[in-house]
Amino acid sequence: MTYCAGILVEEGLVLIADTRTNAGFDNISTFRKLHVVEVPGERVLGIATAGNLSISQSVLGLLREGVSVPGSELREKLVDAPTMFHAAQLVGHAVRQVRHEIGEALGEAQLSFDASFLFGGQIKGGPMTLYMVYSAGNFIECGLDAPFLQIGEHKYGKPILDRAITFETDLYNALKIGLISMDSTMRSNLAVGLPIDLLTIRRDTHMIGLSHRIEPGEPYFTDLSQRWSDALKAAHMAIPRPPY
Amino acid sequence: MTYCAGILVEEGLVLIADTRTNAGFDNISTFRKLHVVEVPGERVLGIATAGNLSISQSVLGLLREGVSVPGSELREKLVDAPTMFHAAQLVGHAVRQVRHEIGEALGEAQLSFDASFLFGGQIKGGPMTLYMVYSAGNFIECGLDAPFLQIGEHKYGKPILDRAITFETDLYNALKIGLISMDSTMRSNLAVGLPIDLLTIRRDTHMIGLSHRIEPGEPYFTDLSQRWSDALKAAHMAIPRPPY
Repeated sequence: MTYCAGILVEEGLVLIADTRTNAGFDNISTFRKLHVVEVPGERVLGIATAGNLSISQSVLGLLREGVSVPGSELREKLVDAPTMFHAAQLVGHAVRQVRHEIGEALGEAQLSFDASFLFGGQIKGGPMTLYMVYSAGNFIECGLDAPFLQIGEHKYGKPILDRAITFETDLYNALKIGLISMDSTMRSNLAVGLPIDLLTIRRDTHMIGLSHRIEPGEPYFTDLSQRWSDALKAAHMAIPRPPY
Repeated sequence: MTYCAGILVEEGLVLIADTRTNAGFDNISTFRKLHVVEVPGERVLGIATAGNLSISQSVLGLLREGVSVPGSELREKLVDAPTMFHAAQLVGHAVRQVRHEIGEALGEAQLSFDASFLFGGQIKGGPMTLYMVYSAGNFIECGLDAPFLQIGEHKYGKPILDRAITFETDLYNALKIGLISMDSTMRSNLAVGLPIDLLTIRRDTHMIGLSHRIEPGEPYFTDLSQRWSDALKAAHMAIPRPPY
């Protein structure tokens, strides 16, 4: 299982991803699901993946080495994409190329072509954007009304995002709320787990702000989890009992 | 969609169910999903349903009018079941009888046999129990370690139950926490909605404690929702910002 959240606020972008993978319930590993392409001062692109790991790794490989684009002889790389929209199209092409290569064989093995991506960042001269790319390579762009997107095991961590995130939330509060969302998910689904990878990008800097991995036992995250648990208890205890 | 939660604590049982149904995204109605069989002083049984409404209504009809039990000529009713375990078996038989009658035709119409039930209460001389009955009529009993069960759209409302409910939680706090869980679910999934039906049963009373419907705009529930939202905001704002 996987949980990744992307939050796009006025100050910039946060991407958070767990690292737990499982091939069956008894084969659990740690793999990085959050990846970055950076040309400092020119572009910084983050991509978080959910679904079948072989699919998402193949898509990342194509984006690094070159994706065949329909109607063109050239193979395009993410690092050369002129705009964020063009880059998101490229991610979509890569997903469809992998689907074309292995989709039928996966089907014969009774496996679905399961993959989704959060893709966000900024290329100099263009706006900062965040996209969710689906397993058919189609995609949606994050808007201002609900300035976050999620992939994987998204439900446990959605209530806090629904209630706490607005476009005006500052970047480090957005990161904190994203970590609370991740903590809620890990608490309710053991198939989402530490370490957690974080990426923040400040708008118009075109470079990584923060790239960090939270390991098990890290004091800040342990404290956040405990404080959140305590605060939830205090919060429901402060609500009057039903009058019925 | 549906969300129902059952909470079994030392003092008794809480069942909560929403009432929203949808046959397609554009055909939304209100139907009662929480039902009670009561013989005051002798037995009180509550049943909450999720899944295909025609299946759950047929199961309830059979439990009221008599279920064919394999190896017996008699048709047994829920009101006559000698023990809670026997009653849960009867719910299972009813589910399989409906599956036998309509499962194949549903399959031909590309519909799955989708139904689940929370079934709890107490029959004089026996313990108070809570069961979750699946679409094959098999069932599990709620235990002391996680003294709640959920059916339907269960994920959004699980984090608060995971963190706040223990077997020692008193009955009205359990009801309150169940309502917070319902509120979180409604906030994140519009296919779960008001009115909400509630049932509480105090242990060893063998009668309904509280049977209540929360209608849209009801002051207590509106206040609970607002206080919970405010408390979550205050809770995350009280957590220090990430030090990275």
